[in-house]
Amino acid sequence: MAKKPIRIGLIGYGFMGRAHSNAYLKVGHFFDLPYECVLQAVCARDEAKVRDFAQRWGYASVETDWRKLVQRDDIDLVDICVPNHLHAEIAIAAARAGKMILCEKPLAMNAAEGRKMVAAVEKAGVPNMVWYNYRRVPAVTLAKQLVDEGRLGRIFHYRAKFLQDWTINPDLPQGGTALWRLDVKAAGSGVTGDLLAHCIDTALWINGRIAKVCAMTETFIKERKHVETGKVEKVGIDDACAFLARFENGSLATFESTRYARGHKALYTFEINGEHASLFWDLHDLHRLQYFDHRDPSVVRGWRSIHVSDADQPYMKHWWVPGLQIGYEHSFVHQVADFLKGLETGQPARPTFRDALETQLVCDAVLKSARTGRWEKVGTVS
Amino acid sequence: MAKKPIRIGLIGYGFMGRAHSNAYLKVGHFFDLPYECVLQAVCARDEAKVRDFAQRWGYASVETDWRKLVQRDDIDLVDICVPNHLHAEIAIAAARAGKMILCEKPLAMNAAEGRKMVAAVEKAGVPNMVWYNYRRVPAVTLAKQLVDEGRLGRIFHYRAKFLQDWTINPDLPQGGTALWRLDVKAAGSGVTGDLLAHCIDTALWINGRIAKVCAMTETFIKERKHVETGKVEKVGIDDACAFLARFENGSLATFESTRYARGHKALYTFEINGEHASLFWDLHDLHRLQYFDHRDPSVVRGWRSIHVSDADQPYMKHWWVPGLQIGYEHSFVHQVADFLKGLETGQPARPTFRDALETQLVCDAVLKSARTGRWEKVGTVS
Amino acid sequence: MAKKPIRIGLIGYGFMGRAHSNAYLKVGHFFDLPYECVLQAVCARDEAKVRDFAQRWGYASVETDWRKLVQRDDIDLVDICVPNHLHAEIAIAAARAGKMILCEKPLAMNAAEGRKMVAAVEKAGVPNMVWYNYRRVPAVTLAKQLVDEGRLGRIFHYRAKFLQDWTINPDLPQGGTALWRLDVKAAGSGVTGDLLAHCIDTALWINGRIAKVCAMTETFIKERKHVETGKVEKVGIDDACAFLARFENGSLATFESTRYARGHKALYTFEINGEHASLFWDLHDLHRLQYFDHRDPSVVRGWRSIHVSDADQPYMKHWWVPGLQIGYEHSFVHQVADFLKGLETGQPARPTFRDALETQLVCDAVLKSARTGRWEKVGTVS
Amino acid sequence: MAKKPIRIGLIGYGFMGRAHSNAYLKVGHFFDLPYECVLQAVCARDEAKVRDFAQRWGYASVETDWRKLVQRDDIDLVDICVPNHLHAEIAIAAARAGKMILCEKPLAMNAAEGRKMVAAVEKAGVPNMVWYNYRRVPAVTLAKQLVDEGRLGRIFHYRAKFLQDWTINPDLPQGGTALWRLDVKAAGSGVTGDLLAHCIDTALWINGRIAKVCAMTETFIKERKHVETGKVEKVGIDDACAFLARFENGSLATFESTRYARGHKALYTFEINGEHASLFWDLHDLHRLQYFDHRDPSVVRGWRSIHVSDADQPYMKHWWVPGLQIGYEHSFVHQVADFLKGLETGQPARPTFRDALETQLVCDAVLKSARTGRWEKVGTVS
Repeated sequence: MAKKPIRIGLIGYGFMGRAHSNAYLKVGHFFDLPYECVLQAVCARDEAKVRDFAQRWGYASVETDWRKLVQRDDIDLVDICVPNHLHAEIAIAAARAGKMILCEKPLAMNAAEGRKMVAAVEKAGVPNMVWYNYRRVPAVTLAKQLVDEGRLGRIFHYRAKFLQDWTINPDLPQGGTALWRLDVKAAGSGVTGDLLAHCIDTALWINGRIAKVCAMTETFIKERKHVETGKVEKVGIDDACAFLARFENGSLATFESTRYARGHKALYTFEINGEHASLFWDLHDLHRLQYFDHRDPSVVRGWRSIHVSDADQPYMKHWWVPGLQIGYEHSFVHQVADFLKGLETGQPARPTFRDALETQLVCDAVLKSARTGRWEKVGTVS
Repeated sequence: MAKKPIRIGLIGYGFMGRAHSNAYLKVGHFFDLPYECVLQAVCARDEAKVRDFAQRWGYASVETDWRKLVQRDDIDLVDICVPNHLHAEIAIAAARAGKMILCEKPLAMNAAEGRKMVAAVEKAGVPNMVWYNYRRVPAVTLAKQLVDEGRLGRIFHYRAKFLQDWTINPDLPQGGTALWRLDVKAAGSGVTGDLLAHCIDTALWINGRIAKVCAMTETFIKERKHVETGKVEKVGIDDACAFLARFENGSLATFESTRYARGHKALYTFEINGEHASLFWDLHDLHRLQYFDHRDPSVVRGWRSIHVSDADQPYMKHWWVPGLQIGYEHSFVHQVADFLKGLETGQPARPTFRDALETQLVCDAVLKSARTGRWEKVGTVS
Repeated sequence: MAKKPIRIGLIGYGFMGRAHSNAYLKVGHFFDLPYECVLQAVCARDEAKVRDFAQRWGYASVETDWRKLVQRDDIDLVDICVPNHLHAEIAIAAARAGKMILCEKPLAMNAAEGRKMVAAVEKAGVPNMVWYNYRRVPAVTLAKQLVDEGRLGRIFHYRAKFLQDWTINPDLPQGGTALWRLDVKAAGSGVTGDLLAHCIDTALWINGRIAKVCAMTETFIKERKHVETGKVEKVGIDDACAFLARFENGSLATFESTRYARGHKALYTFEINGEHASLFWDLHDLHRLQYFDHRDPSVVRGWRSIHVSDADQPYMKHWWVPGLQIGYEHSFVHQVADFLKGLETGQPARPTFRDALETQLVCDAVLKSARTGRWEKVGTVS
Repeated sequence: MAKKPIRIGLIGYGFMGRAHSNAYLKVGHFFDLPYECVLQAVCARDEAKVRDFAQRWGYASVETDWRKLVQRDDIDLVDICVPNHLHAEIAIAAARAGKMILCEKPLAMNAAEGRKMVAAVEKAGVPNMVWYNYRRVPAVTLAKQLVDEGRLGRIFHYRAKFLQDWTINPDLPQGGTALWRLDVKAAGSGVTGDLLAHCIDTALWINGRIAKVCAMTETFIKERKHVETGKVEKVGIDDACAFLARFENGSLATFESTRYARGHKALYTFEINGEHASLFWDLHDLHRLQYFDHRDPSVVRGWRSIHVSDADQPYMKHWWVPGLQIGYEHSFVHQVADFLKGLETGQPARPTFRDALETQLVCDAVLKSARTGRWEKVGTVS
C-alpha cells in the first residue's frame, strides 16, 4: 500500500540536523508506518554549506531564509534545529502557517516564550513535539514502564545528573555556530537548559510534577573571547548547576549538571528508589538498565544488569538480535516512529510543546532559586 | 563532484540482508567517499517477500534466481547473504561474471571450498571481502592499533570466547529459513563456523597465525525436529566447541564458543596479555575497550575503561560527539566505507577471501582435532 | 624489646565495641609499634552480657558503671562506644581523669556539646581521636594522597552520598539497644549524624572547609513504636537529608543520605572532579579506587579501576599479597595503628575532637538550613 | 562453659603461617565453638626469625626441627605451612604421632605422595584437612549452595582461570624462602599446583569429578638464577597451563592459569552455566557473586550482582552488618571454624586429604597430558 508522505523542512544543519535527518531516513526501514518521511527542504544562512548538506543527505531543495521555508506549500512539517533564541519566533510562524512542528530542546529561552509557543500550536491545532530524545532510549522507556506497572511502589528518591568535561579549557571561546551553547544570548542558560532540561523532562515523565526547588549555579570561567566580536566578554551562562527538589508525590530529589567533571563526556544518569525496587540508568552504557528488586529471595538479591536488546523490550524487536546493542542515534528514530504513529492514532506522541513547557517552568524556577538563594515553587502551565 | 555508482545486487534478505542494506544507505551520509552505493537488485526465492523487502529498502528491482542476478550487466557488486552451503557456488559464478563480491562469513563450508573461491576471485581479479564485521567495531580497531604500535610488547596470552544461550530449549527445531544455523547441511558446522570464526578472524588479524590447535566439541541436544522434513533428525552441528591453541609468535590461547551459556546473548570477548600491557573487549558493551598499562605509576595503576567515542578514536569522527555511543550496525557501515576506500586507493580492504581462508583453515583444524582427539596443525593457504 | 602497654577501658559492647576490640587485638600482629594494647576492662549496664563479652574478647575485668571505669587507675585509654547522647558526659569525665580518649562518631549531639568536649580534652592535654574510620580505608587514604599531591589540580566538584535501605519497613520500632539510631533522644539526628557525618569528615579532610550549605530533610515514616515505652511515638529523626554546599576553595558539592534507597546496604560513595583528574570511591567495593587522568594520551584515556592491594599503596604492605583484598574491619586496625604511632611521634592522629567538631558544625548548619529553608553559613571552631 | 583447648603446632611462618595464625586468634571472637585454639608452638629452621614470629603472634614456644615438634605431647594439631616437597614427610610423621593435621595446598608433589599421606592419616584415624581456603569465601560457598539446591539445573559449562602477572620480569630469581614457588624441586610444578589446584578443588566440590583432560603448558622464561646456588639454572616449572576437561556429569570445561597476564594480580574466576541459571565469581571482588536466573521475567532479566554481606548468606552473620565487606583472610577463619565444628559433630570438614588427593590426580593428569599431547583420563583415589 502507498504511504502518505510527510514533507520535512529542516531548519539548521548542525549536529541535530544530522541526527534528525538520519532518523527520517531510517525509520521506514525498521518500522511499519503508513507515513513516509520526505526530505523536502533544508534551510540555513550559508548557502554553500546548506547545499552540501542537502546533497549529502538527499534534501530536494534548500532555503537560506527560514521565513520562506515556513511558508512553502510543499512543506508539511517544520523541524527546528537552530539555537534556542530562535525557537519561539520560528515555531510561532510555522504554527501560523499550519505546519506540524518538531522543535529541538529546550523548548524556549524561558517559560514566557514557551507559553506563547504552546498557545500558537494549540490555537493552530498542529501536531507538535519537542526532541527530548532520551525518553526513547529503550532502557529509559523500560524504566518508565516498570514504574508505571507499580513495580517500585511508593517512590522515595529521584537522583539525576548530567556531567560533561568539555569546557574546562579557558581558551575555548564562546558564540558562533559551534559554540553558541556558551553564549547566553543564544542559549538562554548554560547547563540548565542544555543538560538539566533532559534530566527534568525524564523525571517529570516518570515521577510526576516537581513542586519546588532550591538551586545553586556557578560560572567557573568568568570571561571568554567571543567568536563573533573577537573580544573577551563576560560569560553569562551557568557552567554548573545543582538543585534540591521535592516532587508532588512526596519524593525527594537531587539534580546536578556541569561541564567541569573530568572523565565524563556525556554522563546522564538517573536513579529511582521505591519501596520495593530501584532503577539506575547511565547514558555512557545506554543499552543497559540496572534494576534491583527487594522481592527477590534475599539470598540471591542483587542489582540486575539488564542488557536491553531483547524483542520484548521497548523498540528492540525492530532492530537486530538479542545481545547486539543500538546506540544514541536510535532514540531519534524511535521518536520519529512514535510521532508518525501518533498522527495515525490521534494520540499525540509526547512530549508535546505543552509537556516541554513543564520542563521550562522547572528550569525557570531553578535559575530563579539560584539568584534568590531560596526555595522556589515551580509554576504551572495554565 | 559526482560520485561513481556501485550497483549492488544483494542475495538473501534475512538478518544480514538488513544489516548490509542499512550500511549501504548510511555510508554516504557519514563518510566522504568518491563512490555511491546504489541498491540495484535484491534476490531471493520467495517473490512476494523479496518484493516487500525491495520496497522497504528501496531496491530498484528483484530477482528470484541468483544465477540471473549474477549475470546482470547493471550489477557491479554481488553481496552474498545466504546460508553457508551456497557461498561457494554463488561466489565462483559471480567471480566469473566479473563482479566484485562481498560474502558473509564464514567464507565456506570448509577450506577445500574456500580454496576454490579464492582461486576464482583471484583469477577474475575482482575486489572481494568477507563480512567479519567485528574488526570494525571502533574498540576492536583500537585494540588492533594498540597492538600494532607495540604497546603490549611480547604477547603471552590470547583468550577469546563467544557465548550464547538461545538453543537450550530442546523443542527448538532445526533447518528452514530461520534456523538453518542448526542444520549441518546448510551451516557446515555449529558454533565453530558461526561464532568461533569471528573470534579466529579477529585473533589472526591482531596476533598473527595460529600454528596448531587441540579441540573438543559437544552436541548437547542430540536430536531436533527438522523444519523441512517435519521429522526428528540427528543434530549434526557442534553446540559447543573449545580449543587450545599456540600462535606462531609463541603465545598461548584458549578459545571457546557455545549456545548453552545462560545469561549470555552474544558475548564475544577477547583478552590479550602482553609483556607491558593488556586489552579486553566485550561485545555486550562494544563501545568500551579495557586497557591496562603496567608502565603507569604503580600507585595509580589499574584497568582503564575507555569509552571509545572520541574523534581521535577509530571511525568516531564520522559519528556524534564524545560520550554518545554507536552500536552493532555501525561495524557494517565502517566495513562498506573501508571497502569503497580500498577501491579508491587500490589497497584492498581486509579480510579478503584469502584472509578468510586462513580462518577457515583454523576451523577445519579445530573440527578435525575434535574428531581425532589430538593436536592438529593448521594448514596454509598456498 | 618490651612494648609499652596501653590499658584500654571500653564503654559499650555493641557493633562498634566488637570492631574496636578486634582492632586492638590485631594491630600488633600486623604493625610494628612500641605500644601494646591491653584489654583491661569493658563496661556496660547489663552485667551478664558484659561478662560474656569480656570472656569472648579477653577483657581482664568488667564494670557496669562508666563513672567507675573512668576513675580506675589501671586504665590509660577510654573508648566510648555508646549512643551519641552519652558521648559528652563520659568524654568530659574521662578527660578530667586524664585518660586518653577515643570516641565513636559523631562527636556529640550538636556543636555546643562538641565545643565542651574539645575544651575538656585540650585543657586536660590528653590524646584524643574520633572514630571516623573511613579515612583509613586504603583506597580513601590513597584518594587523599592523590589530591594532596596536586594530581587533580583545581577542584570543581565534590559529590558524596551514603545510601541505606534498612528502615523502609514501618513496623520497625525505635529506641532500645538495637535501634537507638532511630530515637532522636539518643541519636540527636538521623542520617545526618549517623551517615552524612562520615561523608562530611572525609570531605573536610580531602577538600577543606565548607563555607555554607542549603539542606532539606524528610521523615518518611512519621511514627514508630518505641521499644522502651511500648507506645507509638513521633519519629524525631531525619530519614533522609540532602544538601548543597560551597567549599571555601570554590568547589561546589552535593551531599545526600537516606535509609530509604532500596538496593543499597551501606553505599557510601564520593567523587571529586578536578581540572586534570577525577576520583571515585564506593564503600560496597571499598578496596577499589576509580581514577581518571586527563593527561593520559587521549586515545587510551579512561577511568582506571585501581585494585588497592599493592605494597606501595596505603597500609597494604602490612597485609597480604597483591590482589588479596582486606575489608571493613581493617580501617579500625589502621586507625589504632596511627593513633599509637601518633603517641610515639607526638604528631597526633586525626581526626581529633577538634577536627570532629568541624564536622559537627557542618551537621548543625545542615539541620538548621533544613528548618529555615535558607542557605546557612557553617560556624567556626574558635 | 570452659572450652576445650586445641594446641596448635605451626610449621613454617611465611605468608600462610601469618594467615593461619590470624585465623586461630580470631575464630573464637566471631564463632561460638566448644574449642579454643591455643598457639602452642611454631617451628622453623631460623631460630631468631621464628622467635620473632612467636613473640609477635603469641606462640608459647618455638622449635627449629619439625621432627621434635611433631613428637611433642603438648601439641594436638600440626599445621603444615612449608614448601610442597616437605608436605608428605611431615604429614606422615604427624599422623603416626597421632596429631590432627592441617596441610597447606597442594596436598603433595604428586598423587603418589598424596596416596601415602591419605593412607597415613586414615590408618592413624586423625582429623585432617587441606587449606583450599577459597571454598569458604562466602560468595563461593553461596555458589555451591545454589548449585546444590538445583537452581542451575543441568550443568553445561564450567570455566575457571587463575591469572597473575608477578613473574614477567626475567631478572626474578628462583628458589629460596621467598621464591620457592619458582623452583620445581620445592614446588613440584608451577601454576598447576599453585593456582590451578585451587580452581580444580572448587570445581570438583561444586561440579563433581573430572573424567579426562587435555592440557598444554609453557615456560616463558627458560632460565633464572637460583637463589641458593647463585647460578643461572633451567626453570623446571610451568609458567602457564591451560586445559580442556570433561566432567563426569557431561559438562565441558576450560581451565587456565598463568603468571604472565598483565593487569591481574590474583584473578581467580569461575563461571558455571546451567540449564536455568548461571554463576560467576572473581577473587578480585571476592565479596560479590554474579547470578543470572533465566526464570526471571524476561523483560527484567539480567545478571544480578549479589553483595554477599547479609546475615542469611554463608558465614556473614558472624561478621558486621549488610554492605560491609570482609576480605581474603576471613576464608581461613571460616575454615578453622568449620574444622572445629567438624570435631564437635563428627562430620569432618572438607576437603580432607582424601578430597585433596582427587585434585592432585587431576593435576597429575594435566601435567601428563601436557607432556603426551593427548587426552588423559583422571585417576581414581582407590
